[in-house]
Amino acid sequence: MDANSSLSCFTFVPMLISNDTICALSTPNGVGAIALIRISGAKSLSIVSDCFSKKLIDKPSHTAHFGYFKSPEGVLIDEVLITVFELGKSFTGEESAEIACHASPYIQQQILNTLLIAGCRLAEPGEYTMRAFMNGKMDLSQAEAVADLIASQTKGAHDIALKQLRGGFSNELKDLRDKLIHFASLVELELDFAEEDVEFADRKELLQLVIDVLKYIQRLANSFELGNAIKNGVPVAIVGAPNTGKSTLLNQLLGEDRAIVSNIAGTTRDVIEETLNIEGILFRLIDTAGIREGAEEIEAMGIVRSREKIQQATVVLCMADVTEENSLVEVSKWANEILATHPDKKVLIVANKVDVSEKWAIDSAQMPLRHAELIEISAKEGSGIESLRSKLVEVVTGDFNISTDTIVSNARHYDALIRTAASLAKAQYDLEHNVTADFVAMDIRQAMYDLGTITGDISTDDLLGNIFSKFCIGK
Amino acid sequence: MDANSSLSCFTFVPMLISNDTICALSTPNGVGAIALIRISGAKSLSIVSDCFSKKLIDKPSHTAHFGYFKSPEGVLIDEVLITVFELGKSFTGEESAEIACHASPYIQQQILNTLLIAGCRLAEPGEYTMRAFMNGKMDLSQAEAVADLIASQTKGAHDIALKQLRGGFSNELKDLRDKLIHFASLVELELDFAEEDVEFADRKELLQLVIDVLKYIQRLANSFELGNAIKNGVPVAIVGAPNTGKSTLLNQLLGEDRAIVSNIAGTTRDVIEETLNIEGILFRLIDTAGIREGAEEIEAMGIVRSREKIQQATVVLCMADVTEENSLVEVSKWANEILATHPDKKVLIVANKVDVSEKWAIDSAQMPLRHAELIEISAKEGSGIESLRSKLVEVVTGDFNISTDTIVSNARHYDALIRTAASLAKAQYDLEHNVTADFVAMDIRQAMYDLGTITGDISTDDLLGNIFSKFCIGK
Repeated sequence: MDANSSLSCFTFVPMLISNDTICALSTPNGVGAIALIRISGAKSLSIVSDCFSKKLIDKPSHTAHFGYFKSPEGVLIDEVLITVFELGKSFTGEESAEIACHASPYIQQQILNTLLIAGCRLAEPGEYTMRAFMNGKMDLSQAEAVADLIASQTKGAHDIALKQLRGGFSNELKDLRDKLIHFASLVELELDFAEEDVEFADRKELLQLVIDVLKYIQRLANSFELGNAIKNGVPVAIVGAPNTGKSTLLNQLLGEDRAIVSNIAGTTRDVIEETLNIEGILFRLIDTAGIREGAEEIEAMGIVRSREKIQQATVVLCMADVTEENSLVEVSKWANEILATHPDKKVLIVANKVDVSEKWAIDSAQMPLRHAELIEISAKEGSGIESLRSKLVEVVTGDFNISTDTIVSNARHYDALIRTAASLAKAQYDLEHNVTADFVAMDIRQAMYDLGTITGDISTDDLLGNIFSKFCIGK
Repeated sequence: MDANSSLSCFTFVPMLISNDTICALSTPNGVGAIALIRISGAKSLSIVSDCFSKKLIDKPSHTAHFGYFKSPEGVLIDEVLITVFELGKSFTGEESAEIACHASPYIQQQILNTLLIAGCRLAEPGEYTMRAFMNGKMDLSQAEAVADLIASQTKGAHDIALKQLRGGFSNELKDLRDKLIHFASLVELELDFAEEDVEFADRKELLQLVIDVLKYIQRLANSFELGNAIKNGVPVAIVGAPNTGKSTLLNQLLGEDRAIVSNIAGTTRDVIEETLNIEGILFRLIDTAGIREGAEEIEAMGIVRSREKIQQATVVLCMADVTEENSLVEVSKWANEILATHPDKKVLIVANKVDVSEKWAIDSAQMPLRHAELIEISAKEGSGIESLRSKLVEVVTGDFNISTDTIVSNARHYDALIRTAASLAKAQYDLEHNVTADFVAMDIRQAMYDLGTITGDISTDDLLGNIFSKFCIGK
């Protein structure tokens, strides 16, 4: 008997793979020099040949051919360059062609219309990537990484997505799953010999493995806060009394970033407005419009009116003007108050104008017990800004290293990890309390199932439909 | 002596061709599945090889290579597909490469940055096409057609641009110019033998040629009104008293068009709003917001308040409600008034609600002498709408056939044609009045010069700079 056979109930649920040849515009919509239209499926080359001035069926894979693309009536639509890909050698794994045409919406339409008439069907969102997954060119977490890669705006988000696309994440999960499968199969084997009361799986060793895997899974799950922050940006609120220097600080922070960004053609200014990219992490500054206008809702009485702003933030910068008597004391109280009511927030106290006044050091003796870290800056002189930037990165990354650690940035994966952790915790309890093998087996099986959904070793039509429908058309 | 040598003063003024290797994003800006970055110049393949996981220098032209694109520090930026083009075999005629990467703005930036560090320079707008022109891959009117082709929104605009890109237009001009050069060289030859009072060029034959060419050039110049209308759309005003049925007519006209347009993915709804595409010609309906709201500024007293709207229009539809006594008489008066004050406008009288009332035929006897054509419709029933659509196309195209005639759509060409016509008219006058050969030669020479500027046989840095700066970057 094959020890793994009882696990087969979790094998891949095949989704109906369509045999249609599909086509779609793969480059961004709009006017430009060149657009790419991608065709994939068994009839790609024969369909494209019907509309082209050259036959493409026998051309070698990965060769480009210049010629004329014609409508079904033989009317010239455009001069195009078509690259052909053999079965098994394309992104999707299917026979494919890519038409590079002039990027006019009219021409794109005409070419797509012609392909539809010639026998293609318009691709569904994400259908190219889904076909790549179906044809074994990538696993599910890699496929998801494609979408993340396209959407990534910062180095951090890009690096995580690219790492995932290259399979690093999947490999780690696969290793874990293999270890579990090994033990699980031994436990399942025991069930077959239940009457003989044997133990093939060393309970101590299994417990240690479950504890180790659980620890690893928990760390992965914990990385999601960072991964999500990197992917979607970290909301930061700057709060402080009027004339504390918030606007100057904002300009200092944005100034450097803008200088870097405005170098590069094609970035849209209004997207960058009021966001900071520090070491590849995107910080979104909340409600800076008020700051720019010089107004601020915090008054001496407290932070009541800033509550909404703080509510939205992950990081709160509480800003004091050390040339004002009592400002630092007041601000420390705010910081403590925020931490008391929102223990999940990261709070930093920013002491501004340290270049102007020396006497604040004396004031600081009167400060209440601080729970938030204090950074000294001069927004006007620009001193301490670099420390503040580093500190912002530090509070977000915690003990993770973006360059080397595996960071989970996908909510679906996070969810699966949390579920895996719950099953493993149950298995740990079972093992610690000598629960019978059938319960242990069930919990480990569930954990493997949950892990498998991440890479697509376990998948359902619903799951796949949900994942790929979020892609743009043409991918 | 070479009879053509005296014409050499008009030869091409070479513009400083840069030897830089250039790069730019060639696909539209934005997020999508794939983006193309194009590199052109002598060092294309060596620069790209430096950033790529494979050496590309010895790869055959028109082959595509999958691999990893890396930053100068060796950090992976993306998985890309690079197509290589040999010297002489690319769009620009230079050694070239095209990088297909994931269409994320971050990745595009990183790849461009890497190429800049590796030795490329960012391309100027239109620089690829300018290089193609400089390297003899296309003439100037073909290069201009590239920009028109990309911008074309309708079949009409597309067909004209594509015809021009394929050189049809240039060939016709070249033939004309060759005929002129033949005679001009004979006339110039006479100048060399001035003392002998010989006539190498038969004056009668030359006069006939000048008349024929002038007629042809005038027809080309006349086609510009249509070409410009096709390229930029034809502004149409609908005027009429309240409740005449303007809104219903508008819906009838737009309804059909929208149904066609909304079939096609990727067209932006708000661009299509209030424009009509009939037989490949774009009609822009002026100030239809007022019509949609049911309001209209024309009252019984006359068209005074519609003046601005009419001013902007090329075609004015004056709409009558034949169930209202006197409506048709009133509207005919407007139409006459418009034609009297704006003889360049095309005016159509639209008689609406012909399905409801029969008695309007009697009323029509009282109509003033009509100078505008009358179309009978029922906006509600949809009858007569097809005739109205055909009539709209007819008044715009006049005696030109969009499919077969050469249509000029470029203002620079039109200007050169007008100047050519003026010189030819002078030459005709010279020949008819037996003016001496040196004047005839001068006028014909000027006509040839003007024709030459269209195809770029005659060009100056200013002219080229002006043409190519209007291109988008990446073309």
